[in-house]
Amino acid sequence: MNLRIPGPTPLPPQVQQALGQDMISHRGAEFAALLDEVTRQLRRFLQTKGDVFVLTGSGTGGLEAALVNVLSPGDCVLAVSCGVFGQRFADIARAFGANVQQLDFPWGQALNADAVGQALRRYPDTRVLLTTHNETSTGVLNDLAPLASVLRSLGTSRPLWLVDAVSSLGAVELPMDKWGCDLVISASQKAWMAPPGLAFIGVSARAWEFGAQARCPRFYWDLDSVRRYAAKGQTPFTPAVSTLYALRASLASMAEEGLPAIVVRHHRLAEHLRAGLKALGLRLFAGEAVASPTVTATYVPHEMLATVVQQRLVVEHGVVVATGQGALKEKLLRIAHMGYCSMEDVDHMLKALRSVLQQ
Amino acid sequence: MNLRIPGPTPLPPQVQQALGQDMISHRGAEFAALLDEVTRQLRRFLQTKGDVFVLTGSGTGGLEAALVNVLSPGDCVLAVSCGVFGQRFADIARAFGANVQQLDFPWGQALNADAVGQALRRYPDTRVLLTTHNETSTGVLNDLAPLASVLRSLGTSRPLWLVDAVSSLGAVELPMDKWGCDLVISASQKAWMAPPGLAFIGVSARAWEFGAQARCPRFYWDLDSVRRYAAKGQTPFTPAVSTLYALRASLASMAEEGLPAIVVRHHRLAEHLRAGLKALGLRLFAGEAVASPTVTATYVPHEMLATVVQQRLVVEHGVVVATGQGALKEKLLRIAHMGYCSMEDVDHMLKALRSVLQQ
Repeated sequence: MNLRIPGPTPLPPQVQQALGQDMISHRGAEFAALLDEVTRQLRRFLQTKGDVFVLTGSGTGGLEAALVNVLSPGDCVLAVSCGVFGQRFADIARAFGANVQQLDFPWGQALNADAVGQALRRYPDTRVLLTTHNETSTGVLNDLAPLASVLRSLGTSRPLWLVDAVSSLGAVELPMDKWGCDLVISASQKAWMAPPGLAFIGVSARAWEFGAQARCPRFYWDLDSVRRYAAKGQTPFTPAVSTLYALRASLASMAEEGLPAIVVRHHRLAEHLRAGLKALGLRLFAGEAVASPTVTATYVPHEMLATVVQQRLVVEHGVVVATGQGALKEKLLRIAHMGYCSMEDVDHMLKALRSVLQQ
Repeated sequence: MNLRIPGPTPLPPQVQQALGQDMISHRGAEFAALLDEVTRQLRRFLQTKGDVFVLTGSGTGGLEAALVNVLSPGDCVLAVSCGVFGQRFADIARAFGANVQQLDFPWGQALNADAVGQALRRYPDTRVLLTTHNETSTGVLNDLAPLASVLRSLGTSRPLWLVDAVSSLGAVELPMDKWGCDLVISASQKAWMAPPGLAFIGVSARAWEFGAQARCPRFYWDLDSVRRYAAKGQTPFTPAVSTLYALRASLASMAEEGLPAIVVRHHRLAEHLRAGLKALGLRLFAGEAVASPTVTATYVPHEMLATVVQQRLVVEHGVVVATGQGALKEKLLRIAHMGYCSMEDVDHMLKALRSVLQQ
């Protein structure tokens, strides 16, 4: 199978092999070394000198963890959304009692940093800002550098900045410290080439300050206890050890390739796929300037249903893609090129799509 | 290594092998079949016709999920505790704003069903009752059959009954429907012989009724959405697919052995270990009548420190055990015999311990 959905992504052979290692105690020296190795590597990819933790749960669990550790019920939150996952981040904040103002950008477009700045001036009580780095539902990468400047210009009155980087980090530059992001969340099954089941969270010093006042109820996701246990090479609760084995192996491969080369590879994959889709006469959903390096959304020809194309790609060619979400379910295909993906994988995908479209 | 800690437990070879299978889409037919197979098997081991769900998280995540789906802040909870994990269950309920009365039994002893009944009469507003089936910190199995009778005698005024079966289920009988348990929680890395990262939760019809009124904030652990997605063979968020592969393999082995044979094997392992420890002149922590079939706690000779014995067992014999918890850290060893464990494993452990004690 050529698994081209935006997560879980395919596992390289060395990662598949690493999964089957013997179980160990999560309270022993061997585990401490595993956690330390994984954490050190993650810290390099997040480009932070701050804390990075591994949580046992999905990416959505990581988003919830970020929120409940810095929010109190009633807190004013500005949620910037341009798709399903921006909406989800806002919904979690609402579920925990935050007073959420939502700033929506049209699906297929990126956020506008100046508009976010204006909204922050309109809602001066905003304590927490939610943004999505890469919107998986539309294939849009939000360039966060301009937003970082806008926030920097607000000085100490700037809100705490939470970044959903679930489907970007590890494939795209996100210099957390340089940009001043406060909580950055990712998940193992995306660009990290590991199985699902682990979320990662980078935590700035400022996030800890906000956290000290946060009254949202929390136990499993409590980062204070995660930090206490991390200091002794442990996690508060039994972690997903086998998935950590896999992650160690994939991080070793990623470190060998190096972040700059990984970033270039993803850009090339995206460009190659976009050119190929256009050559098939398809209309792309996101504009060139905001196109995601990890996932591409394309319209199917208007006389076709996306789910039918999806089904034929699987059955006839062993290519697995996602369709659009929500109202775009039958209009879009979403094709991922993140993590363990080569030009040959993209070519195989394009060839399969051509065959389906031609019949 | 002879891994004899009370979870994570050793993985059988077929489970290790299953882990490395190719990644698949969590929104496709193959995943639906995987989830269905695992769920059907789990339902048999929980002996329930009700719902059983798999959550991506640790056992503690499963306990939190159970609580936040049935509680509202201020709800009266009676938490019965005889060790660390009973205490944890109570602490999670407190973290989410419940009004918790705690009924403590001494460590090393089991709960007394009549005393629980008296406490329920003393606190007639109790909405939710928390109990631990197998207390991992002391090696005590609470016989829940008498408590089931006590609760039945209360009729419709009985509280909702939550059972932490993290370290018992899959090795011990827990007929959920027959006993009238409302929420039963377990986790993959215990008797289930799979890696950590999945929690299981059985949900009674009555639990759904209580849940409809529960106002605790929840998103990641929301069982309503888990139920909606389960109906189409999916999970709301990306599940730990590789761990589910492992679980399917271990459940297949368990189904082949059969629950009655598994229960007998665990009793024999526990008896054999207890006899062996007594033959070494060691004093056992829990009495014969309440001794756990999955984990045994034994005092070390009073001139020794448990952590030193533990360290020597690892270094000199490759046997990994746990020590006591809290005030008992240096007094107790805790030795697990759950899941993938044979008489030979127990004998090897006893031989190693004899060697360490004799030097």
